[in-house]
Amino acid sequence: MNSTVMQGNSGSPDVIVLGGGIIGLSSAWSLARAGLRVVVVDPAGAVARPRPGATWAAAGMLAPVSEASLAHEPLTRLGTAAVQRFPDLVESIRQAGGPDPQWRRTGSVAVAYDSADRDELRRRHDVQHRWGLDARMLEADECRDLEPALDPGVAGGVLIPDDHQVNPRRLVAGLLHMLTRVAGVEVIARAGRPQLVGGRVEGVRLDDGQMRSAPVVVLATGAWSSDVCPVRPVKGQILRLRMSARDALLRHPVRGIVAGREVYLVPRADGELVVGATTEDVGLDESVTAAGVYELLRDAITLVPGIQDLELTETLARCRPASPDGLPLIGRCHVPGLVLATGHGRHGVLLSALTGDAVRDAVLGRPQDDAVTACDPGRFTDPVTLEGRAA
Amino acid sequence: MNSTVMQGNSGSPDVIVLGGGIIGLSSAWSLARAGLRVVVVDPAGAVARPRPGATWAAAGMLAPVSEASLAHEPLTRLGTAAVQRFPDLVESIRQAGGPDPQWRRTGSVAVAYDSADRDELRRRHDVQHRWGLDARMLEADECRDLEPALDPGVAGGVLIPDDHQVNPRRLVAGLLHMLTRVAGVEVIARAGRPQLVGGRVEGVRLDDGQMRSAPVVVLATGAWSSDVCPVRPVKGQILRLRMSARDALLRHPVRGIVAGREVYLVPRADGELVVGATTEDVGLDESVTAAGVYELLRDAITLVPGIQDLELTETLARCRPASPDGLPLIGRCHVPGLVLATGHGRHGVLLSALTGDAVRDAVLGRPQDDAVTACDPGRFTDPVTLEGRAA
Repeated sequence: MNSTVMQGNSGSPDVIVLGGGIIGLSSAWSLARAGLRVVVVDPAGAVARPRPGATWAAAGMLAPVSEASLAHEPLTRLGTAAVQRFPDLVESIRQAGGPDPQWRRTGSVAVAYDSADRDELRRRHDVQHRWGLDARMLEADECRDLEPALDPGVAGGVLIPDDHQVNPRRLVAGLLHMLTRVAGVEVIARAGRPQLVGGRVEGVRLDDGQMRSAPVVVLATGAWSSDVCPVRPVKGQILRLRMSARDALLRHPVRGIVAGREVYLVPRADGELVVGATTEDVGLDESVTAAGVYELLRDAITLVPGIQDLELTETLARCRPASPDGLPLIGRCHVPGLVLATGHGRHGVLLSALTGDAVRDAVLGRPQDDAVTACDPGRFTDPVTLEGRAA
Repeated sequence: MNSTVMQGNSGSPDVIVLGGGIIGLSSAWSLARAGLRVVVVDPAGAVARPRPGATWAAAGMLAPVSEASLAHEPLTRLGTAAVQRFPDLVESIRQAGGPDPQWRRTGSVAVAYDSADRDELRRRHDVQHRWGLDARMLEADECRDLEPALDPGVAGGVLIPDDHQVNPRRLVAGLLHMLTRVAGVEVIARAGRPQLVGGRVEGVRLDDGQMRSAPVVVLATGAWSSDVCPVRPVKGQILRLRMSARDALLRHPVRGIVAGREVYLVPRADGELVVGATTEDVGLDESVTAAGVYELLRDAITLVPGIQDLELTETLARCRPASPDGLPLIGRCHVPGLVLATGHGRHGVLLSALTGDAVRDAVLGRPQDDAVTACDPGRFTDPVTLEGRAA
């Protein structure tokens, strides 16, 4: 254990976590649970309400197998390991009397709209099979048996029994509940930046000019870390619609390929249907566009015509933090006192609980799990670029 | 002049206007300006903010000529007369120091997407020509000279030089400003219903059970009059997008026919672009649907591809009050003390100032303008069905 960390005076925390998205909150929870005094800094504060950043948009599919062919093997291994961390987190929230984050194993159905899309699904299925993941090819009529609302033209699909889902907004609420009511963690409703003196972290400078000291700072600012880390904002637009809760249009999360384009539809037990998501390389931009909404609706309606009649309750655009190699940056870096937890791309919710534990281990100087070592920020020449004062 | 009206005691108003949409507010203003003591009852109160009812959705095209072929001649005559009332209203708001309602003559361009659409535009042009209205057929290249952002496939169009536009939300704000700050009109932030005793109006029963007495009640509750008047709610969905204010994508309101479907695009000087509107016979339903948004975006993007890049800032659904013959119901009816001002369909903003004056004349027992007599509620057997107590 790093002795510096545990010897902060009673007025200052052991760790300040910069960023109150799913990565920052999970990290704060793992750190607090390990007995560290933690402060979280995020403009949205301690209330689970609409906030900037990818977390508030996320659909909450925990689908490392579905994603397998889109990703590479280390990321898939990381994802399958990450799913295992959820039962413990969910149980902690339950015991703390927090909101149910609606974590459940629903499986998911990947469907292909035309024959070329089916060829692509088959290619992905081969990858899943090669990696020993459970995925079963479906004929068109088997797809419609599982989901009768699918368009009759759907060409085929793949069933992935082990995919899970969670409601990210409720997970945020649950983490905030535990942090503030159980762990007594302070959440400062401000933006902040790591403060360096003589090349090492001294704490966080808040946007009102105040300085909060801490020997360790966790940088978990998602797409907003793109100015200091090798991370690129990738904009995603996402829609929320309302189904009848009793007579749901869909039962499983559906991942579609429609004439080569990706769209996913995640139904929740309360009747919410999440439709996402675009992938746009346009910098830090959280504006909803006509094209984004139009294309999502078009592809969703193509796959499931009954979507036309649903109420459209929300349109949203947020930025994911994408790293050059698709793996997140988790762990200590060349700046003493700074721990990175960013670059999770479209996998932030899936990797949240695992990242929290990995951040805790990095802060405490414990060895990392094998799957996490691939995320060492040291694989990049300059994992972070920060200016500070001389010592 | 109806002596009953002018002899209310100092504690009760001469007239209560039920409904604070554009018809209710215009009526209240004309009545107050004539020296009557007026109270307005509307759940949204005296603040110009999002509220139920068609007014908040309206694009504000004042386009009786464009609408001519869609309507019938009495409605077109009413519309062309109604446009003439705006300069006086706008000047009143200006003198009162209210917000500029952005009333201006911009003309409008009707465009046809394919050759069948062009045939339909030509048919409408023939009607416009026959009624002596100024409308000029345009070749495809003339359309694009006027609006370079139009799709190159646009088949032709019609220029209507005399069409005007106004910003309905700013007009609401201007009317509320004059009513509350100049005329001292009380606006009660509640719902209410006309109270009948012995078959005649005694005032308004508020939804908290309170009774407000007045010898005359104006019923201007738009689609919510459908339970008592021969008026049908017709749902419309409408979008708002954001253009660059400096380099606007469009300069004129554009009314398109795209494969037989209607869509209009109304650009404002501040960069707002309003895209509307669906026409749905689904009862009193103000929910935005996937199909509504999808179809508006599809048709708008088909006509003006550059719309894809615009920010989508608002989606909204509201209900218009449609009468069986397309003309509003304006004037006294068989219930003594009750004046109707409803059934304006998609023409409420256009007809607002004229309706306000007609309501005033009805209350004061003055003769109506020729164009307005066609709107006499007496043309229906049962223009209103209200239950009340015996005398």
